[in-house]
Amino acid sequence: MKIVLAPNAFKESLPAPAIAQAMREGIHAVDPAIECVLIPMADGGDGTLEALVAARQGEFVSVGVHDPLMRPVKAVYGLIDDRRTAVIEMAAASGLRLLEAAERNPLRTTTYGTGELIRDALERGVQNLIIGIGGSATTDAGIGMAAALGFRLLDRQGNEMEPTGRSMKLINRIARDDTHPRLKPVKIQVACDVRNPLLGPEGAAPVYAPQKGADEAMVRELEEGLEQVCRRWEEDFHLHLRDLPGGGAAGGLGAGLVAFCGAELRSGVDLIAEFAGLEAALKGAALVMTGEGRIDESTAYGKVPAGVARLARKHRVPAIALTGNVGENLAPLYEAGLKAILPILIRPMSLPEALENTRACIRISTEQALRLWLAR
Amino acid sequence: MKIVLAPNAFKESLPAPAIAQAMREGIHAVDPAIECVLIPMADGGDGTLEALVAARQGEFVSVGVHDPLMRPVKAVYGLIDDRRTAVIEMAAASGLRLLEAAERNPLRTTTYGTGELIRDALERGVQNLIIGIGGSATTDAGIGMAAALGFRLLDRQGNEMEPTGRSMKLINRIARDDTHPRLKPVKIQVACDVRNPLLGPEGAAPVYAPQKGADEAMVRELEEGLEQVCRRWEEDFHLHLRDLPGGGAAGGLGAGLVAFCGAELRSGVDLIAEFAGLEAALKGAALVMTGEGRIDESTAYGKVPAGVARLARKHRVPAIALTGNVGENLAPLYEAGLKAILPILIRPMSLPEALENTRACIRISTEQALRLWLAR
Repeated sequence: MKIVLAPNAFKESLPAPAIAQAMREGIHAVDPAIECVLIPMADGGDGTLEALVAARQGEFVSVGVHDPLMRPVKAVYGLIDDRRTAVIEMAAASGLRLLEAAERNPLRTTTYGTGELIRDALERGVQNLIIGIGGSATTDAGIGMAAALGFRLLDRQGNEMEPTGRSMKLINRIARDDTHPRLKPVKIQVACDVRNPLLGPEGAAPVYAPQKGADEAMVRELEEGLEQVCRRWEEDFHLHLRDLPGGGAAGGLGAGLVAFCGAELRSGVDLIAEFAGLEAALKGAALVMTGEGRIDESTAYGKVPAGVARLARKHRVPAIALTGNVGENLAPLYEAGLKAILPILIRPMSLPEALENTRACIRISTEQALRLWLAR
Repeated sequence: MKIVLAPNAFKESLPAPAIAQAMREGIHAVDPAIECVLIPMADGGDGTLEALVAARQGEFVSVGVHDPLMRPVKAVYGLIDDRRTAVIEMAAASGLRLLEAAERNPLRTTTYGTGELIRDALERGVQNLIIGIGGSATTDAGIGMAAALGFRLLDRQGNEMEPTGRSMKLINRIARDDTHPRLKPVKIQVACDVRNPLLGPEGAAPVYAPQKGADEAMVRELEEGLEQVCRRWEEDFHLHLRDLPGGGAAGGLGAGLVAFCGAELRSGVDLIAEFAGLEAALKGAALVMTGEGRIDESTAYGKVPAGVARLARKHRVPAIALTGNVGENLAPLYEAGLKAILPILIRPMSLPEALENTRACIRISTEQALRLWLAR
């Protein structure tokens, strides 16, 4: 019998590979002969890199780049598929987690370091790039990344500008005569879980900039800047990205990756499932177990358990999920194909205790879920 | 499809009937057409009365009796089977819970009130008596009960003695010329879960009297008294109960019920299962769900989940258990026939919160367990 273990990370507790391993221990406590295929999952946010490198037995690369305030920082990305595919989390170089609270200011921050990571991967000769864009500290429409890849952002006087949020509104022309030569032939796919457009009331500035340190005046200035970058894409590149769903992700990096790099924005779960090899693993499987720290009605939209369930249903494999927190209104998850959503906490415990004991809880509840499933 | 719901009470949280109802809600959330047969269970301790009256749609009777210190108290017992069977918990009249901490003293306490409950049932014409003997405040070998039923405890001078722990060693003869006329024809069965004998190092006095307020000297005096009562049974009744397993239960009330009332000591779970109608309910059932607040290796010995599992296996019905606390070393429970032991806590919570939220946890985890079971 083959069982596929395809959990997300349990946030603030254990990464997806460790969850999948604990599930395997629980299954082998019932029957060591059961074949377990571990496909640690992610949704494009935190944990994407770790999950894909584990699922595909890839390697990590550490590179010196620049953080959101252009200070030197070491950032890690991954290489999988015999180094043909790079996996980059933008947050590794340009994430909010790299800044103190007082340093957060999207007028001053840049995605330059993300561009440096892409450049490093291009120079290693990769053919595919997967980019997770959660957790950004920036609202620069990707102009920082673009600058690192050889795009030149010119003001009215033709001078090159620093590629930060506050420069956007002053860009008069974007020159692309000196961009990285490997950028065109490489296929870039972006794990993108929000549908927000670049501009307007649902756009990058009003919705996301406040959590990156912007006050109301700054939001207005950023909106003006995003509008100007959008105009430049239209006039200089003949690209119309105003209404692109997901263009507003990561402070406009979503749209920027499309405009500057010809990237494709995709559902994070589907993209990661594809590169992690989930569909191949599901062929001939008797059961797939997924999971996430909390599961509720919002889980049906772009989260790992729902994505895994949909693929499982396509292959007629029953899917069940484990979770530390069972929310309300789970009908959309049953519709997505989840057969059951099982609580894991083996005794009363506080949230900090639960975060400490996830491994044992997963192991024991997996064992018991399998025993029940086999009892029929 | 028929599913039998046979949980124990969840101690300090919900009685067995409420647990069974919450399970039914969970099952009907999946499919309202599933037939649920509610058999609330007990093991002879706390909750026995409530479970049996609920399982057999019996009635409660309230009687004025005497508490362990001979103060008036109202006590409740149950009538089931068209009032042919009475269900008595000794703790209702003679329990430790009726005393303040400072009042606990097994030299002064008596099972007289338990005898009054039995007498009341006899006078209503019952044919069967089920007696649960957990939680006693007494170490009187049942002489208090006997006194209430017409036995006379006589000292060397032929005077009748008060039937307390301290009188035992002075009993010179037990006269039974004036016992209750209905005592002989009635069948009395005792739910008894301990195997301790009346006397010796594993007996009623050294093992249980300390928790009822006895110090070392009192334990010695009680042991001497129990020895004397035992001798009287041998000489006056020609009954040899020294080595009877369970004779030491409830301060020797186990042996006393055998000696004075011709009772049979039985496993609590088996006795309650029989009177609750569990075996009949299991016929044709697809699944039985049981449960208890905590389940660990000790659960295999005389506790509800193991007893339910053994009966279920006999009828080839898969049995699963729900619990708030999954302990270690569960192999004896799988051997007893439990297919799975599922945790119920739907989110991190403290023990007090868990005790408050048992109903929702049971409902949701039952629903999910059923969904998983049906997924195969």
